[in-house]
Amino acid sequence: MTPSPITAYRHRHLLGIEGRLPHEIEALLDHAESYVGNTRLSDRTDSVLHGGTVINLFFENSTRTRTSFEVAAKRLGADVINMQVATSSVAKGETLIDTAVTLNAMHPDVLVVRHPESGAAALLAQKVNCAVINAGDGAHEHPTQALLDALTIRRHKGHLGGLTVAICGDVMHSRVARSNIHLLTIMGARVRVVGPRPLIPSGIASLGVEVFHDMREGVRDADIVMMLRLQNERMSGNFLPSVREYFRYFGLDRDKLALARPDALIMHPGPMNRGVEIDSDVADDVPRSVIREQVEMGVAVRMAALEILCATLRREQQETP
Amino acid sequence: MTPSPITAYRHRHLLGIEGRLPHEIEALLDHAESYVGNTRLSDRTDSVLHGGTVINLFFENSTRTRTSFEVAAKRLGADVINMQVATSSVAKGETLIDTAVTLNAMHPDVLVVRHPESGAAALLAQKVNCAVINAGDGAHEHPTQALLDALTIRRHKGHLGGLTVAICGDVMHSRVARSNIHLLTIMGARVRVVGPRPLIPSGIASLGVEVFHDMREGVRDADIVMMLRLQNERMSGNFLPSVREYFRYFGLDRDKLALARPDALIMHPGPMNRGVEIDSDVADDVPRSVIREQVEMGVAVRMAALEILCATLRREQQETP
Amino acid sequence: MTPSPITAYRHRHLLGIEGRLPHEIEALLDHAESYVGNTRLSDRTDSVLHGGTVINLFFENSTRTRTSFEVAAKRLGADVINMQVATSSVAKGETLIDTAVTLNAMHPDVLVVRHPESGAAALLAQKVNCAVINAGDGAHEHPTQALLDALTIRRHKGHLGGLTVAICGDVMHSRVARSNIHLLTIMGARVRVVGPRPLIPSGIASLGVEVFHDMREGVRDADIVMMLRLQNERMSGNFLPSVREYFRYFGLDRDKLALARPDALIMHPGPMNRGVEIDSDVADDVPRSVIREQVEMGVAVRMAALEILCATLRREQQETP
Repeated sequence: MTPSPITAYRHRHLLGIEGRLPHEIEALLDHAESYVGNTRLSDRTDSVLHGGTVINLFFENSTRTRTSFEVAAKRLGADVINMQVATSSVAKGETLIDTAVTLNAMHPDVLVVRHPESGAAALLAQKVNCAVINAGDGAHEHPTQALLDALTIRRHKGHLGGLTVAICGDVMHSRVARSNIHLLTIMGARVRVVGPRPLIPSGIASLGVEVFHDMREGVRDADIVMMLRLQNERMSGNFLPSVREYFRYFGLDRDKLALARPDALIMHPGPMNRGVEIDSDVADDVPRSVIREQVEMGVAVRMAALEILCATLRREQQETP
Repeated sequence: MTPSPITAYRHRHLLGIEGRLPHEIEALLDHAESYVGNTRLSDRTDSVLHGGTVINLFFENSTRTRTSFEVAAKRLGADVINMQVATSSVAKGETLIDTAVTLNAMHPDVLVVRHPESGAAALLAQKVNCAVINAGDGAHEHPTQALLDALTIRRHKGHLGGLTVAICGDVMHSRVARSNIHLLTIMGARVRVVGPRPLIPSGIASLGVEVFHDMREGVRDADIVMMLRLQNERMSGNFLPSVREYFRYFGLDRDKLALARPDALIMHPGPMNRGVEIDSDVADDVPRSVIREQVEMGVAVRMAALEILCATLRREQQETP
Repeated sequence: MTPSPITAYRHRHLLGIEGRLPHEIEALLDHAESYVGNTRLSDRTDSVLHGGTVINLFFENSTRTRTSFEVAAKRLGADVINMQVATSSVAKGETLIDTAVTLNAMHPDVLVVRHPESGAAALLAQKVNCAVINAGDGAHEHPTQALLDALTIRRHKGHLGGLTVAICGDVMHSRVARSNIHLLTIMGARVRVVGPRPLIPSGIASLGVEVFHDMREGVRDADIVMMLRLQNERMSGNFLPSVREYFRYFGLDRDKLALARPDALIMHPGPMNRGVEIDSDVADDVPRSVIREQVEMGVAVRMAALEILCATLRREQQETP
């Protein structure tokens, strides 16, 4: 008998993709799949987390990720508390740990954390007895983004193993890239990272990826072209050319896309800088562009993750009375 | 048989009052009427939109309108997500359309939008398959404000047709004025706009209103004196005199009000600048001042609009499987 | 027959502790006690305020108090609306009273108010017909903080009367200190206030407390050592020495704590400035440090207060039809 997806992922936290096992990732994706198309008014599932409390603790500005978690939690019937902690308030002197311990004392079920420093979510998870989801920590990981990307791919290609995925752009500063590299290599995909030298971390090949500094070579025959957001502020440094130059060499347009497989999917985690890392023609080329679908899958993945972690939490609470 | 108010307004969006038909406006008002006094703890109606999601997408700071929509949606049992998008975040580069399409992919039922540019809500409505309510777009329209004003008037006067309504102050920059002009003229009221030349748009007479630059003439024998908020920042320009001068000529005080009909109602959309466009004596002169009642009607009107648009949405979803 | 805690506190508002009677405070604490440990997923009490609306109206930045009220209200099944009013928005010109009257017109059940000026909550309570809870008004009162502190103490010591409580630090600017002084003296505890002269208000002895300017004398044989947060910005003035000097003389460390009773509890309302008013060794010395437990009691106290005030509100509504 196949175990239920809800019990196959046996952790109380979702802090990163690194080190997870293929069947754990499959479990999360399978359960998310069950929520796809099941997220509307008519077929609500709001008893799943009824009475539960999810706190969104965001130390970085983010409306789209926060909103996606909020929609997911509310669709499961949970109460959601948003805490947008401005830098000014952190300057007020309380440590991250004190903030987490304080919130934990209010007995939430899940803490969803975004923080500018790598490792923040893991640090915090050690101090609380609720479940913790990493919603992005510095340039480290953003696991639900990788899961929603994987779900989107799997729905179109039927599987992840054996696919060639080109992750293009500012890999250096991207937690999205890092979580995707882990997930895709664990699931047996061939991953390429593509970008100018200053934006590709040295030593990244050790993660099992192939490195390209020529975009045309990097996307050739790819099944998936996954673009990353370029932080405009990076442009002001010395090591990068102008936006126009960047777009010419590393922006995804019809020309470069023509080198990928004819059925290649176009992905972007959003928000897009149109005309910087991606051309509008390509971004809006539905059904090849699955950018909107990624957002939709985001809600399903987060519903699944919330439910699965809460199930673990309740098992642990019953075991340790 | 009279059609139900819920089916008489057959649109999926509420973007403006211009072009609406009298029976559509009546339908919205009649349905709102059914919610008046029915908005408290004891007699909740929270199954109407149970499981639905309403997103407040505000590109301008607003606490009172956002709160009114939030209260209305929650009283109907909907989940509410607030997105206050700061200018800084828009500067992050995502277009309005991308933001809307992203939110739409999370399957909300209603998007309530406020934006500093005229036409923003209508543009956005073309890109989404949820319902859209315009909660103010630039100096264009703010339809729920006009509806709540109309409901307030109708409850006191019994009807709208034939009444003389003086809309006074900064008509130039006011979406409240514009939506009220449309609604009141459609319903057969006589509308006057009253204010100093720099604050009255040239050509406004073409909307079927009478223009006055002398406040005393403008309010004479009016049934309704509707004051507009004066943006203090307008005062810093060259073309307006000091606040003191403004109040002397165009602020509503007992003296000027004495020229209106003895049973004239005093209205203001809030927030008031006491001592600028309205004297405290007059603002607090309940029951002639119906300013608080306007706020109360705001919740009822928004409950009605949310329910009616969601009903249309569901009909459309059933028709196009 | 003992009256139910819910009817023993017969007021519609909770504006301060000053002037309350011992049995009223006991009633609030007893009812809060019934919620302790009863605030999680499995044993929800969400029909208590189902359909009710609680508005958090915060004119000062606060995430922890706002979150505590939000969690408490949602656990009782109420809808919660957050209004964080920035100073800029107040600058927009609307008075506090107009804001309150506007919100009141939307028929909330409870308005939770935080404001930088003493007396703001009481002023506002006169203008609305909902219940009002003062969540901190200037340097005046913060009654739910004093109640949660009292609940924490009572759970450890069994009673409040006869205990010696040392309240240490910036008493001058602390509404937490003021509410605690009132509550503890009403309940028969001996209260000491301890701090440097510039941070102890002259005349505070008239509240029935003993004043100490030597921390070692102040904490000697105390049952409770309650530290106050030091606003870092106070340090920039002329009248206070450096942070290092402050910590040396008035920061709580093991040395000074050794002078208190061996079973003395360590308390802090948070957020802590570690190394300023309290040493980390002491702050984390569980179970003597009950700082986390204070946060937990905060939710229970706020659930009790919300329920009790709403019960009064409903009685009044039934009496005046």
